[in-house]
Amino acid sequence: MGRKNEIRGFLGISVPANDYYLGIDIGGSSIKTGVVSDAGRLVSRHASGSFVDLGREAGLEVLYSTVAEAIARSGIPDEQILGIGVAAPGTMDIPAGVVFHPFNLPAWRDLPIRDLVAERFHRPAILQNDANAAAYGEYWVGAGSGSKSMMFWTMGTGIGGGIVIDGRIVEGAHSHGGECGHMIVQMDGGLHSEHGIHGGLELYAGALGLVRRCERALAEKFPSKIRQRLAEGEELSPKLIGECAAQGDILAERLVMETARYMAVGTVNVMHILNPEMVLFGGAMTFGQHETELGRKFLIRIREEVKRRAFPVLAAKTRIDYASLANDAGIIGAAGCIRAKLQ
Amino acid sequence: MGRKNEIRGFLGISVPANDYYLGIDIGGSSIKTGVVSDAGRLVSRHASGSFVDLGREAGLEVLYSTVAEAIARSGIPDEQILGIGVAAPGTMDIPAGVVFHPFNLPAWRDLPIRDLVAERFHRPAILQNDANAAAYGEYWVGAGSGSKSMMFWTMGTGIGGGIVIDGRIVEGAHSHGGECGHMIVQMDGGLHSEHGIHGGLELYAGALGLVRRCERALAEKFPSKIRQRLAEGEELSPKLIGECAAQGDILAERLVMETARYMAVGTVNVMHILNPEMVLFGGAMTFGQHETELGRKFLIRIREEVKRRAFPVLAAKTRIDYASLANDAGIIGAAGCIRAKLQ
Repeated sequence: MGRKNEIRGFLGISVPANDYYLGIDIGGSSIKTGVVSDAGRLVSRHASGSFVDLGREAGLEVLYSTVAEAIARSGIPDEQILGIGVAAPGTMDIPAGVVFHPFNLPAWRDLPIRDLVAERFHRPAILQNDANAAAYGEYWVGAGSGSKSMMFWTMGTGIGGGIVIDGRIVEGAHSHGGECGHMIVQMDGGLHSEHGIHGGLELYAGALGLVRRCERALAEKFPSKIRQRLAEGEELSPKLIGECAAQGDILAERLVMETARYMAVGTVNVMHILNPEMVLFGGAMTFGQHETELGRKFLIRIREEVKRRAFPVLAAKTRIDYASLANDAGIIGAAGCIRAKLQ
Repeated sequence: MGRKNEIRGFLGISVPANDYYLGIDIGGSSIKTGVVSDAGRLVSRHASGSFVDLGREAGLEVLYSTVAEAIARSGIPDEQILGIGVAAPGTMDIPAGVVFHPFNLPAWRDLPIRDLVAERFHRPAILQNDANAAAYGEYWVGAGSGSKSMMFWTMGTGIGGGIVIDGRIVEGAHSHGGECGHMIVQMDGGLHSEHGIHGGLELYAGALGLVRRCERALAEKFPSKIRQRLAEGEELSPKLIGECAAQGDILAERLVMETARYMAVGTVNVMHILNPEMVLFGGAMTFGQHETELGRKFLIRIREEVKRRAFPVLAAKTRIDYASLANDAGIIGAAGCIRAKLQ
C-alpha cells in the first residue's frame, strides 16, 4: 500500500476515501474508457467516435477528452482516481509503455502512450495488450474470478488470447505472450497464411476462416438458406452464418460446430502446456454465449471435443466457460492492471 | 532468509556456514542424488542400482540409503544441508507432495514422498515433476541462466517439457503444466495414440515416433545402411538411426531432420503462447548436441524451421539452444527448488 499512499498524498487526499482507477480500451474504431472502483465495478463509461483517420496529436486529443468525459460522468472526484491503465491492440513493448504498430492507427506508430497519458493526467499509468487486459478483467472480477490461473480466448476477426497465472499476466519476453490464436494446429497440409504462419488456429477458427469455409461449402452445392440470404444482397459474415445456424440451417450449424472443434484443439494445447484452472471464451464470435441456444451448443461442443482430446485428469478438472464482462472486460482489466501495479 | 535462519537454528548451526541442498532425481531405472551448493554446484552425486521391482518400503530404503551415500561422499556436514528436493516422473500432486503413478513403480502409487523424505531426514522437502525440475536447474545455473523466462524440452522416450517464468515453475492447476509434448500439431489426419491424444507432438518426435517413421521408410524400399545394421542383428532404435545419420546415411539424416522440424513446430507454438526468452533442448534424443556434427545440424535445422514459422520479432529474438547440465539437470534443479522455497 506504500505506493498508493504516496499517490494519495500527491493527489492531496488526506482523509480515507474509496480508490478508483481509470481504464482505457483502444479499439479498431473507437476508444472506450471508464472509471472502475477498487472492487472492479464499472462506475461510468464513455466511448469516443471514430478516431482512426486522425493524425497523432488529434487522435491523442480524442483519447484525452474521452477520458475526461468518463471521469466527469462518474461523479468521482478526480483526486480519487489513483492511476490509469491503457489497453491497446497490435505490437508493443509493454514494459516500455510504447505501442509499435497499433492496427488501423498508422499515426500512432511508436507512440510512448503510457508516458503521454501519465503526463497529461498527472498520475501513474501502465500499458497492456488489449487481450491481456481483457483476460485480467475476467480474472479479477469476471468469470475467472476466484481462479488461480486462467486462459482467455477472445474470438473476433482474429483469435486472441490472454493468460493470467497467480495474478500475473504472461506478457512474454517480447510482449507477445498469450497470442494463442497463432499456434500451429495443422503442421502438414494446413491452411496457408499471407504472413507465413501456416496451419495456425486463427486461419481455421477466425472470422475469415469461417467465411472461407462457408464459401467452400457453398461452392460444393451444400443446401443452405445462406445462399438465399446472399441472393437478397446480404454479405457473407460470421453474423449471417450464426443467424442461419440459429434458425436451424444445417450447413451453418455445422460450420459453427467446426469452429468449436478447432477452438477445442487450441484449448487442449493450452491445457497441456499451462494447465490453467479455467479457460474462458469471449468476443463477438461466441454466438450469443449462454443467452442463445446456439451459444450454449457451441460451448457444449467445445467441452465435448476437449474431453475427447485432453488428458483425462485435465479434461475432468479444467473449467471451460464463457467470459462474463463482455465489451467491458478491456476497460475493467486495464484499470485492474494499474490497480495491481500500485498494490 | 527468515525460513533459512529458522532451519539453521533447528539444525544447530550457530556460526555462518555455506548452505547446501540435496537433490533427488527418481528415474525409470535408478535414483540419482547429489549435494548441491548454494551457487548450484554439484558437490557429490550417487545413483542407486535398479529399484523398480522392489516393494514400497524396500524401494524407500534404497532412496534413503542413496541420499545418505551422496551426503557422505560430499564431505559436507549433515547440518549444512538445509533441505531436500525430490524430482519424480509420472502424475502427481505437487503442492501435496504426493506421487500418483510414477512410471515403472507400481509399488509407489499414491506415495506421500515429500513428507516421508522430510520426516526421514528431519528437514524441509519439496516434490517436483522431473522435467520441471530439470528446467529449473537449467534456468538456475544451466544454459538458461540469466534469462527471465525459459522453456525446456526434454527429448527421450517421450517428449517432456518444463516452463519457468520469472523464477517460478509453471506447475499448472493440476500439476500438469509444461507437458508440451502432448500438444496437438496435426489435428486432422494426424498420427493416432493409444491414449486418445491424436496428432500429438510426441507421436511424431518421440523415440517411438522416430522408429516408426524409420520402419515405414524402410518398408518403402528407401536405400539405407540401417537395413544392413538390422540384418546384423541390431535393434532399430533412435541410437542406431543417429549413428547411421552421423555416418552420412541419407535416410537416417532425413529422419533426424524431420524430428527437428516437428520440434520446431512445437517450439513455435510455445513461443506464440508464452513468448519465453529462451527455448532449450536436452535429453538423449538430441544427437550429441554441440559435440557432434549431427547435433549441430539438428539445432540449426530447428532454428531454421522456427524462423520460417514464427512471428518475425519472436523468430529474431528468441534464443534457441541446447541445455547444458545433461543428466545432472534434475538433481541440481530439485535442489534448486527447495533452495528457492527456503529463500
